[in-house]
Amino acid sequence: MATPTPTRKRGHDPESVLSIAVGVFNERGYDGTSMEDLARALGVTKSAIYYHVPGKEQLLARALDRALDGLFAMVADERAASGPAIDRLEWVVRQSVRILIDRLPYVTLLLRVRGNSVTEQAALERRREFDGFIGHLVKDAAADGSIRPDVDPALVTRLLFGTVNSIAEWYQPARGASPEDLADALLKMTFNGLRAAPLD
Amino acid sequence: MATPTPTRKRGHDPESVLSIAVGVFNERGYDGTSMEDLARALGVTKSAIYYHVPGKEQLLARALDRALDGLFAMVADERAASGPAIDRLEWVVRQSVRILIDRLPYVTLLLRVRGNSVTEQAALERRREFDGFIGHLVKDAAADGSIRPDVDPALVTRLLFGTVNSIAEWYQPARGASPEDLADALLKMTFNGLRAAPLD
Repeated sequence: MATPTPTRKRGHDPESVLSIAVGVFNERGYDGTSMEDLARALGVTKSAIYYHVPGKEQLLARALDRALDGLFAMVADERAASGPAIDRLEWVVRQSVRILIDRLPYVTLLLRVRGNSVTEQAALERRREFDGFIGHLVKDAAADGSIRPDVDPALVTRLLFGTVNSIAEWYQPARGASPEDLADALLKMTFNGLRAAPLD
Repeated sequence: MATPTPTRKRGHDPESVLSIAVGVFNERGYDGTSMEDLARALGVTKSAIYYHVPGKEQLLARALDRALDGLFAMVADERAASGPAIDRLEWVVRQSVRILIDRLPYVTLLLRVRGNSVTEQAALERRREFDGFIGHLVKDAAADGSIRPDVDPALVTRLLFGTVNSIAEWYQPARGASPEDLADALLKMTFNGLRAAPLD
């Protein structure tokens, strides 16, 4: 009779472990989540959780990379690098909305990071790098006269991405606007303004 | 020899107790804050804290009211009730930025409420009532043709107040833009748009 060899429990490949863990982090807060909470959410015993994952912080690192890798792939894209600054900025804002919605739990987790550990500090460092890229783009658009000259580019950067990031506070994928409708509405409001054009 | 009568400890009037407690709530999270944490922040013994405050939830309720009362005083103002809808909407957005900055720790706490207790649910109910008021204002402005017809008023409401509320994530009162400059930049971006007007 063959001895059963250890098999990975069905439904718990690394991807589903990560996805379930991020759900728990977002619900209870990362600091408020114990390995026991994660084991319970995965439906495994507390000792079996270490078979799936070495530790909480490793899951956090993978989850934050999931959000940040999406943003950095975008800024490395040709469309973020060439053409008029205002078009690049619009493209980057639209892509940011798409990434936020596509990776909603991961971006939500990223937005809550406060720097309480080495992993969180590394994520904040990458976020600052991303913000720096956007800041330059806004400055370029201000310098070539394509965005209004009477607002501080640093403030614009904050407010524009504040608008994008605020979507994570209320967006429910199962209902409401599609990602494209949401991106359209956001771009119309921030680039063209809510005021109706005066009638001719 | 006179027996010393109990006196309120200097520096701990109800206002300073509330202010210190809200700082601790925002730093540690309300659920993560114990009465012991509050006593430590106030510099009093754990038993003395009950002289200053009956309990944590009562402090939470007072803090959330501080934010909500400001918002409701605004919507009750004459300037929110009469005149063209778009002007009222602009005024309400500007006032919201002022209130957010003026009562920053209280509004920050309000924005993090998730409904985990009766007190939090009551605050969420009042927040929904406020959002409903804004939603009506946006609909009125859409109906009279003063805001662009190609964006859904419900989305506009979300995005506009998402922009306002995002200020709580990064604003530091001691440095950076003044409340008025910030409100100006936000109104220019959202009502008139970032794109420079075409040259004549």
